[in-house]
Amino acid sequence: MTRWPDRRILDLFGIELPIIQAPMAGATTVDMVVATARAGGLGSLPSAQLTAEGLRKALSEIRAAVKAPINVNFFSHILPPDDPAAQTRWRALLAPYYLEAGLDPAATVAGAGRAPFDAAFCEVVEEYRPEVVSFHFGLPDKALVRHVKGTGAKILSSATTVAEAVWLEANGVDAVVAMGFEAGGHRGNFLTNDMTTQVGTMALVPQVVDAVSVPVIAAGGIADGRGVAASLMLGASAVQVGTAYLFCPEAKIPIVHTNALAQAKDDSTAITNVFTGRPARGVVNRLMREIGPLSEAVPAFPTAGGALAPIRTAAEAAERDDFTNLWAGQAANLASWIGAEALTRELCRTALEVIEHRRPV
Amino acid sequence: MTRWPDRRILDLFGIELPIIQAPMAGATTVDMVVATARAGGLGSLPSAQLTAEGLRKALSEIRAAVKAPINVNFFSHILPPDDPAAQTRWRALLAPYYLEAGLDPAATVAGAGRAPFDAAFCEVVEEYRPEVVSFHFGLPDKALVRHVKGTGAKILSSATTVAEAVWLEANGVDAVVAMGFEAGGHRGNFLTNDMTTQVGTMALVPQVVDAVSVPVIAAGGIADGRGVAASLMLGASAVQVGTAYLFCPEAKIPIVHTNALAQAKDDSTAITNVFTGRPARGVVNRLMREIGPLSEAVPAFPTAGGALAPIRTAAEAAERDDFTNLWAGQAANLASWIGAEALTRELCRTALEVIEHRRPV
Repeated sequence: MTRWPDRRILDLFGIELPIIQAPMAGATTVDMVVATARAGGLGSLPSAQLTAEGLRKALSEIRAAVKAPINVNFFSHILPPDDPAAQTRWRALLAPYYLEAGLDPAATVAGAGRAPFDAAFCEVVEEYRPEVVSFHFGLPDKALVRHVKGTGAKILSSATTVAEAVWLEANGVDAVVAMGFEAGGHRGNFLTNDMTTQVGTMALVPQVVDAVSVPVIAAGGIADGRGVAASLMLGASAVQVGTAYLFCPEAKIPIVHTNALAQAKDDSTAITNVFTGRPARGVVNRLMREIGPLSEAVPAFPTAGGALAPIRTAAEAAERDDFTNLWAGQAANLASWIGAEALTRELCRTALEVIEHRRPV
Repeated sequence: MTRWPDRRILDLFGIELPIIQAPMAGATTVDMVVATARAGGLGSLPSAQLTAEGLRKALSEIRAAVKAPINVNFFSHILPPDDPAAQTRWRALLAPYYLEAGLDPAATVAGAGRAPFDAAFCEVVEEYRPEVVSFHFGLPDKALVRHVKGTGAKILSSATTVAEAVWLEANGVDAVVAMGFEAGGHRGNFLTNDMTTQVGTMALVPQVVDAVSVPVIAAGGIADGRGVAASLMLGASAVQVGTAYLFCPEAKIPIVHTNALAQAKDDSTAITNVFTGRPARGVVNRLMREIGPLSEAVPAFPTAGGALAPIRTAAEAAERDDFTNLWAGQAANLASWIGAEALTRELCRTALEVIEHRRPV
């Protein structure tokens, strides 16, 4: 059995392997969480696109399938005030795409569909007591955090800068995810909105390690054993891997997303706000090219998504990825088409091999 | 004596340590190259701000001081055609700064001062026969490359994407520098100008390693032994370190630059084109904030610099860094104020320590 020299995250979460499957709202399934947990990693269930009832159902299924510790993830944004003028401008910008698809630009659209952590979600946490609760976009208000901690859960959140990591530690997290610029999906930034100064994983991880005393989890651009090994050298106690799990059969993503991942090269992605109103990394597609990748015309998170849904649905029906958020990190090209349990084990097995082979003697 | 498992760069260049001191035009001195070479790393002399005669003098001094192999670096851009309209627009944009400094916005300014590799430089290479010749911004024309190779020099250039690495290998380089997004100074990009898709070191290095058969040198965000150890795990055969050498007494930089480095945090830098017309990473200052960091109003590389010189000189005289290019990577905060010879050795000593301590058993 492997003796990992840094056991801080393993002991904190009660897991066997220093691999955290990233919570990916919409794409992560119960099966993915269960498979990761079976391998000995930390499976993470995202809740941002679930209702409290949906979360209850998913947790029941997971708890019935595995005894291992799990992580439940929540977005901790504050819903913005209604801004009809911003919505009108946004819909005017999208109108040509509606017309091109034969849709009525004035049709009513659904809501945005990204729910923040709240009292209803907190009740589910108190009921199911996941061993780890992680947040994205900082932390929810102190009273809710206290409730979560009261269940015995370890608390985790993401930092994109040293300042964010220091803030998270001061506000009670048990560990920090140092989320490098390479990472796919929504950036965790919450103290800065400046995308020109976001930090790459190689530079971010050791600086976060030096700045906080809680253990650090490296994220961003890690999709194989080399990235795992490198992260441990930088001082990370574990890694969080997202994009590589999108290649697993357990991922639930549209076929256009799978196709984009299959073709993604190192420089196929960019950070964009056009899909939700917050910056996130995805494969560059038509919407990003034509109105982004970053635009001030996009309404506040998460309200941008509603008006996109009809043209996205129409495009996907025609197998076009023009309006789909094709979340991916910069290391998609390193991933393999294997199951989530095998992936979790392989990341560790190959990391150990890499360290052994590349160790000077 | 340490046995490095990957000796490809060590054997190719004839050096003892897998550390390449990055050529930093303006900042790297003869003393820095000599100190790095004495430690067993590869010292790199930049030529972009030298004349052929200045290069001759520097090489004479280096050859007199050390027997170890050295690298001479050249920019391989093509000088743009005169564009008086672009210069007029640029000077109009800068005019308020001239007036603020009590300078005449219509005064004649000096040339841009970044010279590409040419026949005159090639003669110096043939005369002094540096063991390694590196280029930035792709490669010069094939005839010149042939001349350089004819001297027995190994050829090196930087890639910011896998596509650029593949191109460089196809065009005859002996090794590739995989230059991640974190790196300070001018980006090496030459097949793309799209800064939204540049790749972080953690993601770039293994993808370049997989794509080329020549050895790969990791660069970007590496300023201590952890970064060196991590880079070796990613498959790099050596690392190139820049910013950390700016903290050495052998660096020749303005006091405002030293002060900016001393205060630089992980998120203090951005990629900007406002100083030279090409994207480069530096500490964010007034000019970057007010007209950048990336602007289409900046004239073609390297012609932006001439008009900046008078306001830069005036500001520096008042100890203000408003118009100085404060080149730095994202890991400046990891650097120490030690000499270049000690730094070169320390990077390796601490890398070995890190690998030994963080190796699972």
